[in-house]
Amino acid sequence: MAKLNHHFSKLSGSYLFPEIEKRVAAFRQKNPSCRLVDLGVGDITQPLPASAVAALAKAAQEMGQPGSFRGYGPSEGYPFLREAIAQGEYGGLGIDPSEIFISDGAQSDIANFQELFDADNTIGIPDPTYPVYLDSNVIAGRTRALLKTGRYGGVVYLPCTEETGFKPQVPRSHLDLIYLCSPNNPTGAAIDRKLMKEWVDFARERRAVILLDGAYAAFTTDPDAPKSIYEIEGAKEVAVEFRTFSKSAGFTGLRCSYTVVPKELKIYDFGSTHSLHALWKRRHDTKFNGVAYPIQKAAAALYTKQGQQEVQALVASYLERARMFREKLTDAGFSVYGGVDSPYLWCKTPPKISSWNFFDYLLETHQVISIPGSGFGQSGDGYVRFSAFADPSALGEALKRFTKR
Amino acid sequence: MAKLNHHFSKLSGSYLFPEIEKRVAAFRQKNPSCRLVDLGVGDITQPLPASAVAALAKAAQEMGQPGSFRGYGPSEGYPFLREAIAQGEYGGLGIDPSEIFISDGAQSDIANFQELFDADNTIGIPDPTYPVYLDSNVIAGRTRALLKTGRYGGVVYLPCTEETGFKPQVPRSHLDLIYLCSPNNPTGAAIDRKLMKEWVDFARERRAVILLDGAYAAFTTDPDAPKSIYEIEGAKEVAVEFRTFSKSAGFTGLRCSYTVVPKELKIYDFGSTHSLHALWKRRHDTKFNGVAYPIQKAAAALYTKQGQQEVQALVASYLERARMFREKLTDAGFSVYGGVDSPYLWCKTPPKISSWNFFDYLLETHQVISIPGSGFGQSGDGYVRFSAFADPSALGEALKRFTKR
Repeated sequence: MAKLNHHFSKLSGSYLFPEIEKRVAAFRQKNPSCRLVDLGVGDITQPLPASAVAALAKAAQEMGQPGSFRGYGPSEGYPFLREAIAQGEYGGLGIDPSEIFISDGAQSDIANFQELFDADNTIGIPDPTYPVYLDSNVIAGRTRALLKTGRYGGVVYLPCTEETGFKPQVPRSHLDLIYLCSPNNPTGAAIDRKLMKEWVDFARERRAVILLDGAYAAFTTDPDAPKSIYEIEGAKEVAVEFRTFSKSAGFTGLRCSYTVVPKELKIYDFGSTHSLHALWKRRHDTKFNGVAYPIQKAAAALYTKQGQQEVQALVASYLERARMFREKLTDAGFSVYGGVDSPYLWCKTPPKISSWNFFDYLLETHQVISIPGSGFGQSGDGYVRFSAFADPSALGEALKRFTKR
Repeated sequence: MAKLNHHFSKLSGSYLFPEIEKRVAAFRQKNPSCRLVDLGVGDITQPLPASAVAALAKAAQEMGQPGSFRGYGPSEGYPFLREAIAQGEYGGLGIDPSEIFISDGAQSDIANFQELFDADNTIGIPDPTYPVYLDSNVIAGRTRALLKTGRYGGVVYLPCTEETGFKPQVPRSHLDLIYLCSPNNPTGAAIDRKLMKEWVDFARERRAVILLDGAYAAFTTDPDAPKSIYEIEGAKEVAVEFRTFSKSAGFTGLRCSYTVVPKELKIYDFGSTHSLHALWKRRHDTKFNGVAYPIQKAAAALYTKQGQQEVQALVASYLERARMFREKLTDAGFSVYGGVDSPYLWCKTPPKISSWNFFDYLLETHQVISIPGSGFGQSGDGYVRFSAFADPSALGEALKRFTKR
């Protein structure tokens, strides 16, 4: 008789996004003529840069010709893309192209990476943050049961609240695997250089591993916040960095990302040292067969002169939306954080109003869809997230509704 | 201190393909002027069908336009592709589009699917077969250590030898999860209807689950071999089927596949019933973000009239290569199996010559690259695999060398 992975049953029943969809659908059914403004899901709203489109279309033609089509590529990605990333993103930081693994999404990679580790590692997770870190560890049995508080036993939560500047502080407790997300989803807060160094030092002292989700790295504007953890001395010994083209280059529908696993990163276990790079390579070879050649060509085109200009313009335009929305929301009396190093705005609910209640209020009174902060973790309660990836017209309409009395 | 998943260390050190590459590289270094004929890796050698190229190029343009670009798609795939597959592949078998999950590769899916199950399930694995089934279970801790025999403790191997007609026979022993691969890689043997029914009945009686890798289903020519396990009554209660566009439509470089998880498939565990479909959906949502929209459009184009003609022509041409090569190899005195329901030929080594020794002999004497059968499992020893995906010129050259005295 087949027996299930019983850890699945520990997952909190209603995943955030389906629950939002359910409430929105119910509202729509009751109010079919209402025009909803969606500032919820953080999907891109601008098309793919022309350089990527041209490269994709050209590669499509190559695939149809006997002399130029490609079959299986290297599971870790084509050298042309790994080299472009090493130079374009990590120039001067000493990251070798062979340390960069191309994949179909930062979500997949960060969800899969924990597989390299034993079940009995203690994980540290920012609260609030992107739910995938925790959920993938729950499925792998690295947590205990879901408690009545909404938290899992055996997990060290790192509060990112107003008190901590929305940044995860180095704890006194023991940690083996540390998830960081900077700039953070959902709060938009970027970890500054001093704090990043504290984390690197903490990990080096304890031989812990940092898994840094840098999905929003391209949006960092604070000169005091490192875009890459490898700007910090010693980080290559302890940190893996996850990056994606999804948000900075409009790739959410194309699926391409990369993960940096430095060869210096060693695990001290069973009385000897092990290379995490070799292990991830082995995992990749066994369970992944690479990203489509045309998609990799589209990603590489982002590192041409034209591509770089297009990416910069795209990032600047989303950040400008965030700046404008943040400013006007603040003028309208809201307490807003984020929106500076990321297109996410982290908006405080009125006193004693929970995230879900404020979500419902915004939906029913203003027909605006947000994301309840508590969906990202207990410490996110009392906030909602707005996405400034939304069209300027949607942001403008939301503001109009918020300020109309 | 981070602790590793110690199951990785159980994996046999040298994975098949790197070992082949090593030996080939060493040969090349000693004989730099030799022209090698590669009948090893089963990659496609014909370009992408024109219908897929056109759809891919068109979708690339759509991605660049404000009115038509796509961001995140459904993690389980776009309805247009799921519907095309349901009708094109499973018409009359009662598979609903919602039971079809689109993914980036049959390899990833079949390697990931075991994650839904507990570590203490007993797995049955054909021997020889595609190494990913076993390796993904080793990593998950579902086997005991690697024995001196080259087999893992705690695994039930299902010999596919001359004696069993190269087909895995239903064992007397207990099994919870059953991997089947039909037509088999590497032997090329397709499981006939009678045997497939025995497996389905076995699984129904024992509430076991069958994971059927149908990567080569499109090449099935034997009218007595079902293309899909769902042609067998009751299979929907026990079987998951993995398929890919890689071989039948030249998609190895595009990465698109699908997995069928019928809603009727229930797991009886913890005193209640569980839907494997719901669990795989949850796994998909957490750890996967869907396949690129342009790639899904390219796959859907294969179900147009033109696409179907192109796929049929492609499959027929590879099968014709296999037929020709098999016939001539047999004329040349080799004992050859397969090559009828798959483009793989399973060629017996001379008496008392191991797979690796024959591999070395073919490389050194004829400069032909094969794959040692023992790389697919102990029972594969005494065979090598030739891939008739190779160019006719390569197949012709190999024959010339084999028959030259």
